[in-house]
Amino acid sequence: MALIVHKYGGTSMGSPERIRNVARRVAKWARAGHQLVVVPSAMSGETNRLLGLAREVNPGTPDAAAMRELDMIAATGEQVSVGLLALALQAEGMAAISYTGWQVPVKTDSSYTKARIESIDDARVRADLAAGRVVVITGFQGIDETGSITTLGRGGSDTSAVAVAAAMGAAECLIYTDVDGVYTTDPRVVPEARRMNTISFEEMLEMASLGSKVLQIRSVEFAGKYRVPLRVLSSFTPWDINIDEEARSGTLITFEEDEKMEQAVVSGIAFNRDEAKFTVVGVPDTPGIAYKILGAVADANIDVDVIVQNVSHDGRTDFSFTVPSGDFQRVSDLLKDTVVPKIGALQFTADPRICKVSIVGIGMKSHAGVASTMFRTLAEEGINIQMITTSEIKTSVVLDEKYMELAVRALHRAFGLDAPANLV
Amino acid sequence: MALIVHKYGGTSMGSPERIRNVARRVAKWARAGHQLVVVPSAMSGETNRLLGLAREVNPGTPDAAAMRELDMIAATGEQVSVGLLALALQAEGMAAISYTGWQVPVKTDSSYTKARIESIDDARVRADLAAGRVVVITGFQGIDETGSITTLGRGGSDTSAVAVAAAMGAAECLIYTDVDGVYTTDPRVVPEARRMNTISFEEMLEMASLGSKVLQIRSVEFAGKYRVPLRVLSSFTPWDINIDEEARSGTLITFEEDEKMEQAVVSGIAFNRDEAKFTVVGVPDTPGIAYKILGAVADANIDVDVIVQNVSHDGRTDFSFTVPSGDFQRVSDLLKDTVVPKIGALQFTADPRICKVSIVGIGMKSHAGVASTMFRTLAEEGINIQMITTSEIKTSVVLDEKYMELAVRALHRAFGLDAPANLV
Repeated sequence: MALIVHKYGGTSMGSPERIRNVARRVAKWARAGHQLVVVPSAMSGETNRLLGLAREVNPGTPDAAAMRELDMIAATGEQVSVGLLALALQAEGMAAISYTGWQVPVKTDSSYTKARIESIDDARVRADLAAGRVVVITGFQGIDETGSITTLGRGGSDTSAVAVAAAMGAAECLIYTDVDGVYTTDPRVVPEARRMNTISFEEMLEMASLGSKVLQIRSVEFAGKYRVPLRVLSSFTPWDINIDEEARSGTLITFEEDEKMEQAVVSGIAFNRDEAKFTVVGVPDTPGIAYKILGAVADANIDVDVIVQNVSHDGRTDFSFTVPSGDFQRVSDLLKDTVVPKIGALQFTADPRICKVSIVGIGMKSHAGVASTMFRTLAEEGINIQMITTSEIKTSVVLDEKYMELAVRALHRAFGLDAPANLV
Repeated sequence: MALIVHKYGGTSMGSPERIRNVARRVAKWARAGHQLVVVPSAMSGETNRLLGLAREVNPGTPDAAAMRELDMIAATGEQVSVGLLALALQAEGMAAISYTGWQVPVKTDSSYTKARIESIDDARVRADLAAGRVVVITGFQGIDETGSITTLGRGGSDTSAVAVAAAMGAAECLIYTDVDGVYTTDPRVVPEARRMNTISFEEMLEMASLGSKVLQIRSVEFAGKYRVPLRVLSSFTPWDINIDEEARSGTLITFEEDEKMEQAVVSGIAFNRDEAKFTVVGVPDTPGIAYKILGAVADANIDVDVIVQNVSHDGRTDFSFTVPSGDFQRVSDLLKDTVVPKIGALQFTADPRICKVSIVGIGMKSHAGVASTMFRTLAEEGINIQMITTSEIKTSVVLDEKYMELAVRALHRAFGLDAPANLV
């Protein structure tokens, strides 16, 4: 008997019939002798519906007081879900009880709409488990020290589930979603992409941050910090499949070095075309120039991703960086009106048509020449690299958007990911 | 400057545009220098939608554990409303903050789906009012001693508003609804019906219990217990009408005897066709027979309204009572299978086609002959009276349903309610 946390996404909770199927699956696990804590998301579309109503009554940019109200409103989506799932479990003959974040309580800071979990009191939940109940807890939300409801931001239910699993020392946290695991790359781009049976926590963190949408990155960070074994698996398998088969399905995110077989050097290829590139040209090369350019961007609350500063010629240099595509106009205005005149640069260029392609693998730590294999592969395909950035376990390149699929397929092949033998 | 509680029904909160109009009306009151606490209902249709989802995932008859979950789900309707109204008030430039029942907190017993308010802590709300905020509080709900969410049952937001007004010693509680006050009878039946400027608490209590749907009866009881001045008025007047005019509109439910003018003997005519009549025929007339019949009905959680026991002949009597029409089949089964055989009665008759018509007036306390005027009026119209029941300030008769409109119109005329001069 083990304590298991299940997390179900909005699609899995999308209708009364689907909720009944979630209940049947959970009941199967409970009947197999496990203690179950379940964290469901809001029914699909519900959070958007609620925030749409909020925008209709108040179209302005929300201040802190308004963000508190947005959280008050948005949190109800998950509250409905936990009540419905508890009722569905009762209909399956299971003892079940639901709790909101404030009832557990899940304590957070007061950053409304993007709060951080500070602590979880598990006493109440443990008492229910000991009494034989399945416990259903709202994802996405908590309570701050003023007693106000907070939410964790989009995808926050993944983080809630992992946090609950960490607080309770769960044996495993199963994230049921609409894909059946983590793939070497997106199967829609590379049909030969293969599902990984395991992926290391560090690789998953890079994959998540590089645009793989399977898990919210904060949930992966949380899992890493508290070493919560995390498994991504499909909620679209029949609910009554063999439980041992289900327990081994999907992709396990692991913290233990796998001794049994050789680690693949590169585990996966991530990509992202939602960024835009800016280059400030002819920047006087004086100390603090990076801060002057990026400080202004950061002050506008825009996330900068890849940053490259060229060597200088004649006391001037070029400085390039990428930002989310949605911030393209704001950054253009900022550079034109403020940054370029202020620092005495010559001009700037902007390119929304770029993509970022990354190879990720824990084996890169100990293998030389991986990056050069990447560069050679791209060169052989005639693809020009615009920017390069690296970390211990990944190398990212910025390319013209039109080469993205070609680059991903070529790299997937070059690193042997097409072949099952290289899978971990 | 006074502390005023506003309560808005689901229709008033039915769309973002209507919510903005509620906000404009509340802002007008706040700008006039009043402290405002607002209790909005769920958006119209929302509670039904939520409970419909609940029935789909669990169609069974709810036990206590399921009723706890129903409250968890249903309470979200009002939570969304308070957040939206606070946002709409902020859009009007007002400082505003929303609270759920558990945040205030509004403490109740643990009778899920029909909880009773036990206490309200007003410290937090008072602090916000003192800081110049409009405070928006969820109706319909509270928290029990286990920290679970409870709801007060249908129409419970009226009760919440009155309870908050009582706890805070509000100068007045304004119930904004889709009618513009309390009428001498239903204007759809009697076009000559007149809106009353004031009605006594006792009369309102009778009107509410007799089927006038303007206010939930528990809210009237609460107002009586704590002497909260209550006003029913329309939410469909333009939000920007003159505030003094608005403050005097509708119907004031008052606790003070009006000295200025002669009290009408009969204030209003109430009616109700949602009851069915049962007669147990040839009951052996022994002590405890009423308990044996009605005890079985009460045990099935069915409310009995009018009860009449005839004098006995030859040791047998007839025993009649009315119940809500919705319980017709259950009561029929109960009498046939259990009660009639057990007590040795001869048979029973059932009539779903009845109505109850009542005259209500605080002046009946001191005026003789009021009931006989009622009986004479009905006799002159050729209407046969099946049952009669009286209290200090009302007389009710049970009639064949087909006579209902005729009876109401004749009584409205007979007691001078058609003529404006008799209005209080």
